[in-house]
This record gives sequence, structure tokens and C-alpha cells, in this order.
Amino acid sequence: METVLARTLPSADIAPRRLHQAMRYAVLGGGKRVRPLLAFAAGEVAAAHEDRLEIVASAVELIHAYSLVHDDLPCMDDDVLRRGRPTVHIEFDQATALLVGDSLQSLAFQLLAQYPLAIDPQQQLEMVTLLAVAAGSRGMAGGQAIDLASVGQSLTLPELEFMHIHKTGALIRSSVMLGALCGQLTEKEMAQLDHFAKCIGLAFQVVDDVLDAEASTATLGKTAGKDAQQNKPTYVSLLGTTQAKTLAESLRQDALDALVGFGQTAQRLRELADFIVLRPF
Amino acid sequence: METVLARTLPSADIAPRRLHQAMRYAVLGGGKRVRPLLAFAAGEVAAAHEDRLEIVASAVELIHAYSLVHDDLPCMDDDVLRRGRPTVHIEFDQATALLVGDSLQSLAFQLLAQYPLAIDPQQQLEMVTLLAVAAGSRGMAGGQAIDLASVGQSLTLPELEFMHIHKTGALIRSSVMLGALCGQLTEKEMAQLDHFAKCIGLAFQVVDDVLDAEASTATLGKTAGKDAQQNKPTYVSLLGTTQAKTLAESLRQDALDALVGFGQTAQRLRELADFIVLRPF
Repeated sequence: METVLARTLPSADIAPRRLHQAMRYAVLGGGKRVRPLLAFAAGEVAAAHEDRLEIVASAVELIHAYSLVHDDLPCMDDDVLRRGRPTVHIEFDQATALLVGDSLQSLAFQLLAQYPLAIDPQQQLEMVTLLAVAAGSRGMAGGQAIDLASVGQSLTLPELEFMHIHKTGALIRSSVMLGALCGQLTEKEMAQLDHFAKCIGLAFQVVDDVLDAEASTATLGKTAGKDAQQNKPTYVSLLGTTQAKTLAESLRQDALDALVGFGQTAQRLRELADFIVLRPF
Repeated sequence: METVLARTLPSADIAPRRLHQAMRYAVLGGGKRVRPLLAFAAGEVAAAHEDRLEIVASAVELIHAYSLVHDDLPCMDDDVLRRGRPTVHIEFDQATALLVGDSLQSLAFQLLAQYPLAIDPQQQLEMVTLLAVAAGSRGMAGGQAIDLASVGQSLTLPELEFMHIHKTGALIRSSVMLGALCGQLTEKEMAQLDHFAKCIGLAFQVVDDVLDAEASTATLGKTAGKDAQQNKPTYVSLLGTTQAKTLAESLRQDALDALVGFGQTAQRLRELADFIVLRPF
């Protein structure tokens, strides 16, 4: 995946060089690559070709990377540290960080449209639509807006869930769906993967909240304890750490149950559910 | 076009409401709609169906609107006035303006992928690619990056042209090309439109520079005289007003020459070349 991303991003030798350098800094600086891993794992269930999976995995990771660059800006989360390094607007400047995010988003859609991903190009158009909806105001960006509006507010558990289904869930779901759409699955099987994706999407956020409350900045590679400091509603602030962990574990079980019947081809998806929920505890 | 845009944007009644309200404020606040007009006029040459032209015209205008919202942010041009009204980050806030731009970009790609634009879906995928390249780091966003880097620098005329070919030219070109691709044209005819688009794209920028130097804030609906104030290289700073006007006129002639042989179907394109270059003088 690192090789693919390095090859996909414009070279830092091509003008505008500083922008391309900053785009590479933003994307190639590590990260768990959970969304690409999910796309590949879902693709394995659907017997998808690796060349296609590289494209959709890159596209979802570019959307994710763009969202991090914009989230870290002073007018949003105002964070100086990401993946153990200075954030893009600190290493470069705010205007460059803004354009890096904008350009990464364009590049994600370019990838999805430019390379063959499905035998039927109409299905490929539907894949572009799926990512656009997941990234936009009814998906990830909308989740960010709800998140901003919620600072200092007391949310109910359903309201918190609504926010996260948009903010992180939409892109995680599309990672799984796009991976699967590179291959062949029945409608029932797609629905199973969809349910799996929804469960681990939420589990991912619950675990993130627990980590923000419990882990150190050094371990996280980003500033820890920011949620409490900003008085943000989280699963930990609503449920406490113990119950939040129980919720994550129950979502992991639901995710695994959704994969019943897939056998060995879904082994990587199962391992990812475990990785997402169990790694920190 | 106003009706189409109003129908295309998410309703302000749908959550997240404040974000959707701000997206509508950003797009529906007037503007000359030059890019949609170009898409429609190019579509007329290609005998394209109006339903398709509405989609591509909306998509290019959403990309344009997103770029204005992000350009006006304090970390970029730091402008408080646009189309005679407070800019989005003044009327709402910076975080919302950031998400408005991000969401409008996603929506543009959603439109291009979601609705039928060509008999051959493969051609429609190429239309998505065309817009993504025009918007990204090798197009509009890249032009912005070059523009930022040029503040306080002395550019040569070819360097200034290189910047504008990216910053405004790429999206103007894609407005014309996408409109034409909704219909049927020969390769030679597409090349003619391409040349037309390049000429008026540059002419547009030359006229913008003259207007910024000569017109009042009230006439422009945005802050006048900013280029000189920010010590930005412009066609006026490089050539003087008189020569800049001569250049614009010569680009208009080149644009009109490119349309030779199209007859009456290109009348609207000719009128747009006149509108772009002659309106202010």
C-alpha cells in the first residue's frame, strides 16, 4: 500500500512542487491504513483483482488523509501533531494545508474514474457516486459539521451515534463496499458486508474515544486527552471507560456474526475487526 | 441555472442544517455563472440534451463556488466580501466555510457520476476524470498554490500565464469540454472548442486583473485593488492597463477565430467571448 500510494501521488519534482511535496508529506507519513486494509479484505471475499483493489484502497485513503489535514487546521481541531510528526499546516503553512486537502480529494475521484475497476463502466460510475456521497455533506464532511456543533453540548447516545455514523462510519463503510464492488458478490452478501462495516465503523470510534482518554500522546502519535479538554461528547464521557469497552467488544461480536457463511475468504476481515477493537486494550 | 442549482443543493431542512444552509449561501448568492453559460453554449454546438447540460453546468459551478469559499478564508486571500455580501466564513464561521468547500467538491463529483450524461458510461467516466484533473493539483488547486508562491515575486509574462492557465483556465476549459462531451462532435471540432476555451480562459483573467485595478468595490461586489495592495503580479502590473486591454482584445479575436466553420450553433459561444472581454470597458 505504501508503494502504491507513493506511486499514485504526483512526484515532488512536478510543478507546483511545494504543493506536491506537502501532499506526499500528508499521505506518506505512516498511519494504520485501516481503510485500505478493509478494502483489500472485502475484495478478497469478492475475489476481486488486486490491481483494482489498489485503486479503491488509494482513493479511500486519500479521502481520509485529506480529512485529517483539514481537521488539524487551526479553525477546526487546531492540532500540531499527527502520526508523531508536525501536522501539514505546521510543517508547511495553512494555505498549503488547505490546498493539500482540496487536491487530495480531487485525486481520489480522479483515481476512481480513470482506471478500470469493473467490467461494467456503469457500475464504476456507481462506485464514484458511493464515495462522493460518503465524503460529502451527508457523509464524512457532514459528520464533521455535527461534531463541531456538538462541542460543549450534551448529546444523547443516539445523537453521538448519528454523528459517528457520518464522521467516520461513512468512509469505513465505503472502503468495504468499494473493495467488494471490485469483485462479484450477491446482494445478500453485500448486505452482510454492509452490516459488518457499520459495526466496525462504530467500534472504531468507540475505541478511538477510549484511547484518547487513556493513552499517552507518545503512544497515539497525536495529542491525547483533547476530547475532555475541548469538552467534546464521547463514548467515554457518556458511558465511562468500562462500558465503552464493553460496547466496542459487543460491536466486534456483531461484526463477526455478520460474516457467518463466508468461510476462509473473510478471514482477513475478521482479523481486522479484532485489530480495530482489541489492539489497544 | 439558478433553479437547477437550488434544486441540486441539499435542502437547509436536512441535517446537518447549518452546513447545508451555508452551502446554499455560498452557491446561490448570485455570480455571473460564466462556467455554466460556457457549458450550455458548448453543448449547443454539440447538439447536447439540456438535461445533461444542467448536470455538468452545476458540477463546474460547484467546483468554482468551493474554490471561492476556500480562497476567501483568512489563510488564503482573507476577504470579507464576495458578490456584494459577507463571505461564507464571515457570515458563518471558518470551520463551516472549510466544510462547505469540501462538501461542494464532493457534490460536484457526485453529480457527474450519478446522472446519465453520455450514452457510453465509459465516456462519462472520462468526463469525471477530466473534471478531477482540472480541479486538482495539476489544475485549479495547483494554480492557487503557484499564485500563493508568487505574492511579492516578480514573474515573467510566461510564468504569469502558466499560473492562470491552471488557476482559472483549467476549470473554464473543462466547462466547455464537458458541455461539448454531453453531445456529439468530431475530434477536430473538439480541438477547436479546446482552443476557444484556452483563449477565453486567459482573456477572462486579463480582464479580471484590469477590473481589480480600475473598478470600485461597489461595482465588483468584492474588494477592489487587492492585487496591488498584496503586491501580486498581474497582467496590469506587468503590461500596464492599456496593453492588458489590447491583450484581452487579441485573445477575444483568437477565440472567435477558433469557432470558424461552426455557424449559428456557436453564436452563444461568440456572445460569451464578447461578454467576458467587452463588458467592463
